[in-house]
Amino acid sequence: MITPYRDRPEPPYYAVIITSTPSGTDPEGYAAMGRRMGELGAAQPGYLGRESMYAPDGSDLTVIYYRDPESIRAWQQHPEHLEAQRLGRDRWYARYRVEVARVERTYDFTAPPM
Amino acid sequence: MITPYRDRPEPPYYAVIITSTPSGTDPEGYAAMGRRMGELGAAQPGYLGRESMYAPDGSDLTVIYYRDPESIRAWQQHPEHLEAQRLGRDRWYARYRVEVARVERTYDFTAPPM
Repeated sequence: MITPYRDRPEPPYYAVIITSTPSGTDPEGYAAMGRRMGELGAAQPGYLGRESMYAPDGSDLTVIYYRDPESIRAWQQHPEHLEAQRLGRDRWYARYRVEVARVERTYDFTAPPM
Repeated sequence: MITPYRDRPEPPYYAVIITSTPSGTDPEGYAAMGRRMGELGAAQPGYLGRESMYAPDGSDLTVIYYRDPESIRAWQQHPEHLEAQRLGRDRWYARYRVEVARVERTYDFTAPPM
């Protein structure tokens, strides 16, 4: 988890849910590109944070949060990100699913001190 | 990942994103309740599937999919689930965040056979 429980604005805001399974080809290149895209993505306008976890088989579940649909579209069309997406389809991914969702309400809980 | 890439309907549908950190109290009871709620929840009307991953520290990122907001509300108010939520806050969770989101569009990719 990269930014656990990082503060987010009041809804509505947006979540991009990414489920992915690597192909197993070029794992070092895939990891390096993941780090680069993580850093570059976090610097984009409207980025609100990210949760990410891996299964033992390398499958990945990531949720990235954004202020609005325009921020998501701008990042999708960023030239360096477009090239990473192309390489991902050519080389690194066996499969992925991306779901763009509008967060409508939230519930938070923090246990009181013992 | 419980139902990787399980088919889902065309958007719109709903995603409930749950980020949670266990307190460390009663891990066996927590795990047993998690299994029970997973089975009971999957049997509810409007349930579309689930993705779930754990970090090494026990933190959990789960996304559960539903047909519509009514299905989510009905499950939130299910008597056995209400009791599980109460026990969770009293005993099992240090922290959690629940985000209810409307999935507006999706992209799928499957690599062609080598």
